[in-house]
Amino acid sequence: MLSDHLQNGIETAKLVWSRLPTAEDDAGPAAAEEEEDVFARRSNGGSGMESLDYEIIENYAYREHQAQRGKLWVSYYVVVKWLFALLIGIGTGYAAVFINLAVENFSGWKYAATFSIIQHSYFAGFLVYILINLGLVFSSVFIITHFAPAAAGSGIPEIKGYLNGVDTHGILLFRTLVGKIFGSIGSVGGGLALGKEGPLVHTGACIASLLGQGGSTKYHLRSRWLRIFESDRDRRDLVTCGCAAGVAAAFRAPVGGVLFALEEVTSWWRSQLMWRVFFTSAVVAVVVRSAMSWCKSGKCGHFGSGGFIIWDISGGQEDYSFQELLPMAIIGVIGGLLGALFNQLTLYITKWRRSYLHKKGSRVKFYCAKDKEYNDLATIFFNTQDDAIRNLFSAKTFHEYSAQSLLTFLVMFYSLAIVTFGTAVPAGQFVPGIMIGSTYGRLVGMFVVKFYKRLNVEEGTYALLGAASFLGGSMRMTVSLCVIMVEITNNLQLLPLIMLVLLVSKAVGDFFNEGLYEMQAQLRGIPLLESRPKQYMRNMTAKEACKTQKVVCFSRIVKVADIVSVLRSNKHNGFPVVDHRPNGETLVIGLILRSHLLVLLQSKVDFQNSPFPCDLRGVSNRHNFSDFVKPASSKGKSIEEIHLAQDELELYLDLAPFLNPSPYIVPEDMSLAKVYNLFRQLGLRHIFVVPRPSRVIGLITRKDLLVEESDDSATLELQSTSVRAQRPRERLVMQHVQQPEHPLLSSLLIQQ
Amino acid sequence: MLSDHLQNGIETAKLVWSRLPTAEDDAGPAAAEEEEDVFARRSNGGSGMESLDYEIIENYAYREHQAQRGKLWVSYYVVVKWLFALLIGIGTGYAAVFINLAVENFSGWKYAATFSIIQHSYFAGFLVYILINLGLVFSSVFIITHFAPAAAGSGIPEIKGYLNGVDTHGILLFRTLVGKIFGSIGSVGGGLALGKEGPLVHTGACIASLLGQGGSTKYHLRSRWLRIFESDRDRRDLVTCGCAAGVAAAFRAPVGGVLFALEEVTSWWRSQLMWRVFFTSAVVAVVVRSAMSWCKSGKCGHFGSGGFIIWDISGGQEDYSFQELLPMAIIGVIGGLLGALFNQLTLYITKWRRSYLHKKGSRVKFYCAKDKEYNDLATIFFNTQDDAIRNLFSAKTFHEYSAQSLLTFLVMFYSLAIVTFGTAVPAGQFVPGIMIGSTYGRLVGMFVVKFYKRLNVEEGTYALLGAASFLGGSMRMTVSLCVIMVEITNNLQLLPLIMLVLLVSKAVGDFFNEGLYEMQAQLRGIPLLESRPKQYMRNMTAKEACKTQKVVCFSRIVKVADIVSVLRSNKHNGFPVVDHRPNGETLVIGLILRSHLLVLLQSKVDFQNSPFPCDLRGVSNRHNFSDFVKPASSKGKSIEEIHLAQDELELYLDLAPFLNPSPYIVPEDMSLAKVYNLFRQLGLRHIFVVPRPSRVIGLITRKDLLVEESDDSATLELQSTSVRAQRPRERLVMQHVQQPEHPLLSSLLIQQ
Repeated sequence: MLSDHLQNGIETAKLVWSRLPTAEDDAGPAAAEEEEDVFARRSNGGSGMESLDYEIIENYAYREHQAQRGKLWVSYYVVVKWLFALLIGIGTGYAAVFINLAVENFSGWKYAATFSIIQHSYFAGFLVYILINLGLVFSSVFIITHFAPAAAGSGIPEIKGYLNGVDTHGILLFRTLVGKIFGSIGSVGGGLALGKEGPLVHTGACIASLLGQGGSTKYHLRSRWLRIFESDRDRRDLVTCGCAAGVAAAFRAPVGGVLFALEEVTSWWRSQLMWRVFFTSAVVAVVVRSAMSWCKSGKCGHFGSGGFIIWDISGGQEDYSFQELLPMAIIGVIGGLLGALFNQLTLYITKWRRSYLHKKGSRVKFYCAKDKEYNDLATIFFNTQDDAIRNLFSAKTFHEYSAQSLLTFLVMFYSLAIVTFGTAVPAGQFVPGIMIGSTYGRLVGMFVVKFYKRLNVEEGTYALLGAASFLGGSMRMTVSLCVIMVEITNNLQLLPLIMLVLLVSKAVGDFFNEGLYEMQAQLRGIPLLESRPKQYMRNMTAKEACKTQKVVCFSRIVKVADIVSVLRSNKHNGFPVVDHRPNGETLVIGLILRSHLLVLLQSKVDFQNSPFPCDLRGVSNRHNFSDFVKPASSKGKSIEEIHLAQDELELYLDLAPFLNPSPYIVPEDMSLAKVYNLFRQLGLRHIFVVPRPSRVIGLITRKDLLVEESDDSATLELQSTSVRAQRPRERLVMQHVQQPEHPLLSSLLIQQ
Repeated sequence: MLSDHLQNGIETAKLVWSRLPTAEDDAGPAAAEEEEDVFARRSNGGSGMESLDYEIIENYAYREHQAQRGKLWVSYYVVVKWLFALLIGIGTGYAAVFINLAVENFSGWKYAATFSIIQHSYFAGFLVYILINLGLVFSSVFIITHFAPAAAGSGIPEIKGYLNGVDTHGILLFRTLVGKIFGSIGSVGGGLALGKEGPLVHTGACIASLLGQGGSTKYHLRSRWLRIFESDRDRRDLVTCGCAAGVAAAFRAPVGGVLFALEEVTSWWRSQLMWRVFFTSAVVAVVVRSAMSWCKSGKCGHFGSGGFIIWDISGGQEDYSFQELLPMAIIGVIGGLLGALFNQLTLYITKWRRSYLHKKGSRVKFYCAKDKEYNDLATIFFNTQDDAIRNLFSAKTFHEYSAQSLLTFLVMFYSLAIVTFGTAVPAGQFVPGIMIGSTYGRLVGMFVVKFYKRLNVEEGTYALLGAASFLGGSMRMTVSLCVIMVEITNNLQLLPLIMLVLLVSKAVGDFFNEGLYEMQAQLRGIPLLESRPKQYMRNMTAKEACKTQKVVCFSRIVKVADIVSVLRSNKHNGFPVVDHRPNGETLVIGLILRSHLLVLLQSKVDFQNSPFPCDLRGVSNRHNFSDFVKPASSKGKSIEEIHLAQDELELYLDLAPFLNPSPYIVPEDMSLAKVYNLFRQLGLRHIFVVPRPSRVIGLITRKDLLVEESDDSATLELQSTSVRAQRPRERLVMQHVQQPEHPLLSSLLIQQ
């Protein structure tokens, strides 16, 4: 039985790794040696690779490639990882400072010019003001439409999609970065009803991604020394750092940045990453702080502290009574309603825009068509008064605004924000949200002051709560938004109130529709996995989910022509590879990715004449493994771009060295909800649905995964989930003793 | 082929669910109807169960049980979930207030008494002081040793273990809660070198767990209406809330609490939970705040604000120069060294204590033996001066302390903290850590003041950094510690400096050993899964990990006697169940838990005479499903406690309704590192290692998990990870067209 077991084990282990030159099935001494050799090299390859995950590229050839690198490379890798975290922080920090500097200075000049002209002629001043704004906005529109179309909008849905596992073309290019920065300056400086926070998140992500690939490919700015992040996971980690840096820079909220990246953006999270993300955020905070203190000496023109949202109400309301909780809850309800309405209206408008463009049959480019829309709207946009908005936030001002003017402003700005949304400029929704929210918050505050006269009620606090409620009702963020609001206001005292308001507004909003980013992502066709599976998935098995589908498999050794025809005939991104054993059995030996097949077809070096397994040893030398890494900045190769001669099509390819030998599998009748959780929590892209297994080789429990070293743990009572670690000797004894007593028992112990 | 496929599908689907009364294998109309019926009921059962995860109890019978509950129950479940979050917050908040009130008042009385006596006789005053302290500490020791032994120590390692999947006996009992609260009062009030933060975390967790099981079983305080949290996952969620509440209460740091629970305690995390945890923390903040403002009116005796650590240095150093970064980094290095040394020394001392006790062969109870140690040490402990320690923290005091006195204090307190560690009282390591750290931080600060004379250097800031560095060097927390320090000091400006110091101290500490809690957990035999797999796991397959192990399986229908003998012969907690098909094939149909088998053996209602499958329809009515739920407060049943008559042993049991039909499986040659990540990220307890599958039934990608509704997404360019969703029609066309062209292709398409 034991030898059976061993034989079985060796056979399967051999399947991929050791069935090398002869393709024979006997486990002779030569084959065993071969296997050991291969394993030794594998072990060597694995040493010290602290977080290079093999999920994306975990084939034999890549492991060999890694093995050749050695320890020095690993240390270098760790150093570069932290260096990049530092650089992302510095880069994003300076980008934020630059954008703010530019916007503030443009605004300053604009007001100075308007003011000096308005002394002579009111109309001329108005005209100049409009012209300057028009110029700024058009420069932004021009940049987006002609140079960097991917830089339009907030960018957060796309980044969210990227981190969720979906690349939108062009979002992380160098030109997008430049377009985002200068586009933001134009649109925000031009006084549109939008902010620069979303764009800063996108900017951070772009910087991170560009660093990750060692610079821009197109502009020949790449350095070989920095191109060490070959796995998608490493890239995603960098982009996560970039996101956090963006939020940290936009709001000067390092903790909020980390939480934003954690809650809103990434779909999976590792605690190792958290610390690096936090480091990046702190670097941003230092950079912005030092830049601002340098500007205090007056070297930055019109730049004040207004550019960075710090809405300090530490001098405001310190205490609150229980009576006030009711109006605050009302603010939450209003926020939920207005936020949900905002999401719905922006959805309709974006859909209407699309169908309108479709009906006109205009084949003009999508973004260019939007360009025209700007003309119509431009005249309305420029009436918003930056000054009025800024004063809204002030804390110590009672009755500065009449209810009528606030209401008018609310309606106007709300409509403007909806119309501006989704146009061809980099647009953040935070600042408009804060403005809308603080307006009605202040309105409620005014009523509270009227009704509860004796209380130390502060309208500014209500404005803050209003802002939180609208953002909560629209974006549906919770913890991160809370922390961002606290960091903006620099007042921890209000945290419970902000939470209350967010709780209410999110609940009300969730009743009507989904969050803004989710809806946007859906509209743009970015498939985001929500945090929990849909209801129907609980009642569906994995098999039912892929019932209609025909699985296209490859044999281990395939003709090149067959690969080409399969790749042409469908768009699958991964294919199971099966091996046909001599006894007629088939065995699934792994998963091969379309992208890797394309690389193999293009390089041609692995083609062989014989339809028999190849010699694995030369494989890793034949390849430059950065080929296997999908470039972040392109759409990847396509089968149409690859040209093969007729004689090449007749050759064979052994897929064994290039497949992922152990993809994740689920039994056919696992509920789809469970599969969903696997996908989300592990960040998977493919999973195999397989038949129920015929036997269980082993059972792994937590105990098996722990290094056992505590020898005196028996002194302590412990109810472990598994105390299976009593070694085989005991089990053998048990078997010998009990078999005679209970003859039926032997049938329960499966003979392996 | 299609009918083959269908037939196959029906057969396997039927396997568990529909092979009911006749145990026949033909899929006749009656059987199909039966199946539909079962499925309908299953669907019904799943409706609206928003986060009751079936991982722990997902067998047929339990689903049926859920199905009978209906929609109203689900709403009730959600309401109770949030109500509990509220109650945990209130409970923990009041517990914290109570402990602080008591400690402050004891201290106040102690000092008043000592002071009044010291006027007459110095020696008498000293004696009274010692006696009061002794009395307090001994009351604490008495409580722990005679009433609640599980309340000794910090409690954080045990809670960490619980959330990681390992129950330590007795940690979440009502008596532990009481013992923890009163023990903390005694030990902290008695002036020992320890804090009440760890104990507060434990207190919060106890409150949460008691709520989760609807009150204490032993003291008949249970309510049937609150006993709705039947899955372990729900319980763990509650305990997570409790942990966060504890930190929030101890430091008045709600955000820090959330991050602590996130980073340090839970091994897996869902974003839905985050919001609930945050809500609980905020409730704590409100409760503590309102209690303290109530106390301000003088109704709380000696209670001031000193009990809650708020170390406000907002009046301190506002700016820092680059030169100062060097001494700050040095503080980090010192913190790392002293922290690592602290961990190592406490490890040695605990080990020495154990071996000392073992050598003496004392069969006295472990905790009682420690009781005696107290006598020897008591006289040293009581020399620490609360006042001196509090003044250490002050911000605006230059040169208040001489370097010599600080150094003496550091050495003394460091030694005391090490010796006190692990004794039989509730003990937190935060306050001692803060004291030690701030002492050497202040020392460094004094030198900095001496060397960089012109700078606006503030010793208090250095003390803060020192505290952060020691905690970082000892506990190795990162983000949460950072946020806690910021919330304690109420000064966001210092965040980057705290980060720098933590970064250095954690790196230095990690060079030497593991974190304090990890080492403690190891010492107590609590198997925690670290955040990343060990190096050797990368080079090991799942099969190799369970090579030495004999799998004990059950057949679907087993004799009761066989179950008993298997359960007696080993300690496995889960068993695969295999079914023997008529054609001689075996199929793994699920996993049955030891605890569920024990419930079945005890209840006896499912025993049957015939060795054929039972009628599933009656099963759910026969059971009270709270039986299947493992009580949080006991060690669970044991096979020895169950007594069966000889004729009962001859009966049979059909396991099908009680097994988990789709446990997680991994192929035999998946690397152990990958398996490890599965365990950690999904919070698993068992995983089956199965042979490589012979075929792939389907391939699930992200696209399959998305509700497709965007019809116009084609207008946008999108490089999805999978664009497989082109429905079967297309695929059929492809097959028909291309088969004639490429005859080999048909062999690639596996015929199902």
